[in-house]
Amino acid sequence: MAEPEFTEDPHRRYNPLKGEWVLVSPHRNTRPWQGQVEAAAGDDKPAHDPTCFLCSGNTRVNGVVNPTYDGPFVFDNDFPALLSDKPKAVQDDDPLFRAETVRGTARVICFSERHDLTLPELSVACIRRVVDLWAEQLEDLGKDHDWVAIFENKGAVMGCSNPHPHGQIWASDFIPNEVACEDQCQRQHAEDTGETLLVAYAAREAADGTRTVVENEHWIAVVPYWAIWPFETMVMPKRHVLRLTDLDTDERDALADVLKRLCTRCDNLFKTEFPYTMGWHGAPLTEGDHGHWQLHAHFYPPLLRSATVRKFMVGYEMLSEAQRDLTAETAAARLREQSEVHYKSGTT
Amino acid sequence: MAEPEFTEDPHRRYNPLKGEWVLVSPHRNTRPWQGQVEAAAGDDKPAHDPTCFLCSGNTRVNGVVNPTYDGPFVFDNDFPALLSDKPKAVQDDDPLFRAETVRGTARVICFSERHDLTLPELSVACIRRVVDLWAEQLEDLGKDHDWVAIFENKGAVMGCSNPHPHGQIWASDFIPNEVACEDQCQRQHAEDTGETLLVAYAAREAADGTRTVVENEHWIAVVPYWAIWPFETMVMPKRHVLRLTDLDTDERDALADVLKRLCTRCDNLFKTEFPYTMGWHGAPLTEGDHGHWQLHAHFYPPLLRSATVRKFMVGYEMLSEAQRDLTAETAAARLREQSEVHYKSGTT
Ligand SMILES: O=P(O)(O)O[C@H]1O[C@H](CO)[C@@H](O)[C@H](O)[C@H]1O
Ligand SMILES: O=P(O)(O)O[C@H]1O[C@H](CO)[C@@H](O)[C@H](O)[C@H]1O
Repeated sequence: MAEPEFTEDPHRRYNPLKGEWVLVSPHRNTRPWQGQVEAAAGDDKPAHDPTCFLCSGNTRVNGVVNPTYDGPFVFDNDFPALLSDKPKAVQDDDPLFRAETVRGTARVICFSERHDLTLPELSVACIRRVVDLWAEQLEDLGKDHDWVAIFENKGAVMGCSNPHPHGQIWASDFIPNEVACEDQCQRQHAEDTGETLLVAYAAREAADGTRTVVENEHWIAVVPYWAIWPFETMVMPKRHVLRLTDLDTDERDALADVLKRLCTRCDNLFKTEFPYTMGWHGAPLTEGDHGHWQLHAHFYPPLLRSATVRKFMVGYEMLSEAQRDLTAETAAARLREQSEVHYKSGTT
Repeated sequence: MAEPEFTEDPHRRYNPLKGEWVLVSPHRNTRPWQGQVEAAAGDDKPAHDPTCFLCSGNTRVNGVVNPTYDGPFVFDNDFPALLSDKPKAVQDDDPLFRAETVRGTARVICFSERHDLTLPELSVACIRRVVDLWAEQLEDLGKDHDWVAIFENKGAVMGCSNPHPHGQIWASDFIPNEVACEDQCQRQHAEDTGETLLVAYAAREAADGTRTVVENEHWIAVVPYWAIWPFETMVMPKRHVLRLTDLDTDERDALADVLKRLCTRCDNLFKTEFPYTMGWHGAPLTEGDHGHWQLHAHFYPPLLRSATVRKFMVGYEMLSEAQRDLTAETAAARLREQSEVHYKSGTT
C-alpha cells in the first residue's frame, strides 16, 4: 500500500456497494471553465408565496386546495409516474424486447409550511418531524409495495420543479435497478466476509476520520472513498439498522442533528442553498432475509467550484465511467472547514 | 403479448445491453414545468472566433498555437484526465478501500475549422473525414491502450466547455465500467442464444420500423426499445463489425450519410443545435475473442419538450432507476416527422 500516490496521480477507486469503479484525476481541478454557469439559488423567497402550488392553503395545479398545514405535509403527487390502479399484468419475455407492467404510488412531502426554509434552515425539532414522516410513510406504503423510494431533488439545477422545499416518495411493486444492485453487492460481501458491508465500512471511517464530515453518537456522514460527485456524502447509522422504521427515538433525534449539521456545512461551502439529490436506501420490503442490508442515505450534489459552476456527468462519464477531479479526502476536508452556523440565519 | 398496454400504462423495459431496466410513464408528459429552463444555443457564431482556444491559428490557454487547419484537427488535451507517464503501478486490495493507479492519453478533435458549424451542418464529405479520423485515432491509440473512448459532448447543457464543435478521445489501460458491462451482457447473450445481440437487434428493428429514425444500405439509427433519454438513439451497422477500424469505404460513406441525416432531424425537432453526449462503443483492444461485440454509437440527448426544457435524470433516476415520460415509439415517430433539410442552412 503506497497511499501518497492516490492523492496526486490519476487512479480508480472501487465502489463495493455498486460493484463499479470511478476514475479520479486529482491534478485536473485547475482546468479553465468556459462552459455553462448555473443561476445561484435566490435568497429572496417569502415565507408564504401565494403563487406556489405547495404552500399552505393554496390551490394546486389540478384545483385541489392544500389544507392549512404547519410542519411536514404529505399528499398524492398530481402527476405520478406510477399508478396504483394496477393495469392487467403483462409481461413480454422476448429477450430483445422485454417489458412488464408495473403498479405504484407517488407522493410529495412538503418539509414545512415555510416556503423560504430548506432543510438545514429548519430547527432540529422540525427536521425530526420530517424524519418521523419518512418512517411513517415507509410503514404505510411498505405494506403493499416491494420498494419505497424516499428522496429529495433540491434546487433547479437538480430538476426540482417547485421551489417550496419538498421531497418525494415513489413506491413500487418492483425493486428498481440501483436497489437490486446494492442488494446483490451487500449480499455478496456478507457471504464473502461474514460482515455487513456498510456497518464495517462506517466503523472503519469513524476510526480513520479522513473522510468524515459530521458525526454524533448514532450517525456518521462521510465523503465515501468511492464518491463520484465532487462533494457527495453518505449518512449511515453506527448500529446495524435495516430500515428507517427501525430507528429508535434517540437515533431519530441524532439523525435530525446530523442532517442539520451536514446540510449547513454544505450550504456554507459556496454560500448557497446547496443543490443535491438525496435519498434513503434501506432493505426492500420483500420476503426473505435482509440481514446483509444497512440503512443509509446518499447525497449527490452537482456543484464543483462555486455556487454556479457544477460538475457535468456527461461524455466519458455516461459512456465509459464516472470521473472526478478532486479526491474524497480533499472534499471532506473542505466540508470539515465549514462552520455549523448557517450563512443565512447566523444560527445553528 | 398485449402490445397496446405498453403504449399507455406505466411499465418497465429491459436493456439487454446493460442488464438494467427503465421505468416508462407515458401518461406523465403533460405535467406542468416550473423548473429550470436552459439557454437555447445561439445561432450567431462567427465562422472564425479570434477568442476561441480551438479555432485555426489561435493560441490555446496554455500558450500553444494551433496550426492553420482545414478539416478535422486533433491535438493532446491540455487538461487531460489521464496521464501517459504511467505512475508506479499501485494496487490496494482492501475490499472496502480498493484502488489502482491508471495510465492513459486524452485528445481533442475539432471537427473542422468552422467555429459555427456543428456536425449536421457539415457536408457529408466533411463528416466522412471525421469518421476517418476517428478510425485513425483508434488504430493509433489502440496499439497500447485497452480502451479508446471516442465521444462528443455537444452544447453547454451537456458540459461542453468550448463552443467550437469538437469531440474527445480518452484512451486508458483499463476497461471502464460501461464497457465492461456491455461486454458481459453481449457475451452472455451470445452464449445463451448463439446470436450477436446487436446484430440480431438491428435486424429486428429494421424489419419492424416502429423505432427506426434513419436507415441506409449499411446502417440503421433507432430509438432503442429501452432508451432512457427522451430522444436517445443508437446507430448500428447492419453487418457484424467489431470496431470503427473494420469499416470499409462504402460503410464509412454510409455512416457519414446516416450521421448527417440523424443529427439534422434532431436539430429540426426543436429548431436548435440539439445538445447530446454521443460516443462509440466497439470491441475493446484486449486479447481474446470479441466476436460477441457489435460496434455501435449511443446518442444521449437531454431535451424533452423544447430547446429549453430538458429531462433531469435526478432523484428517482439516480437512486432507483431511469424513468422516461414518452415511449421510444413516440420519440421515433416525432424524429421521423422531421425534415432532412437543416432548419438553419436550408440545405441537405
Ligand atoms: O473535457 P471538458 O470538455 O473540459 O469537460 C467535459 O467533458 C468531460 C468528459 O466527459 C467531463 O468530465 C466534464 O465534466 C465535462 O465538463
Ligand atoms: O417530480 P418532479 O419534481 O416534477 O420532477 C423531477 O423529479 C423526478 C423524479 O426524480 C424526475 O423524473 C424529473 O425528471 C425531475 O424533473
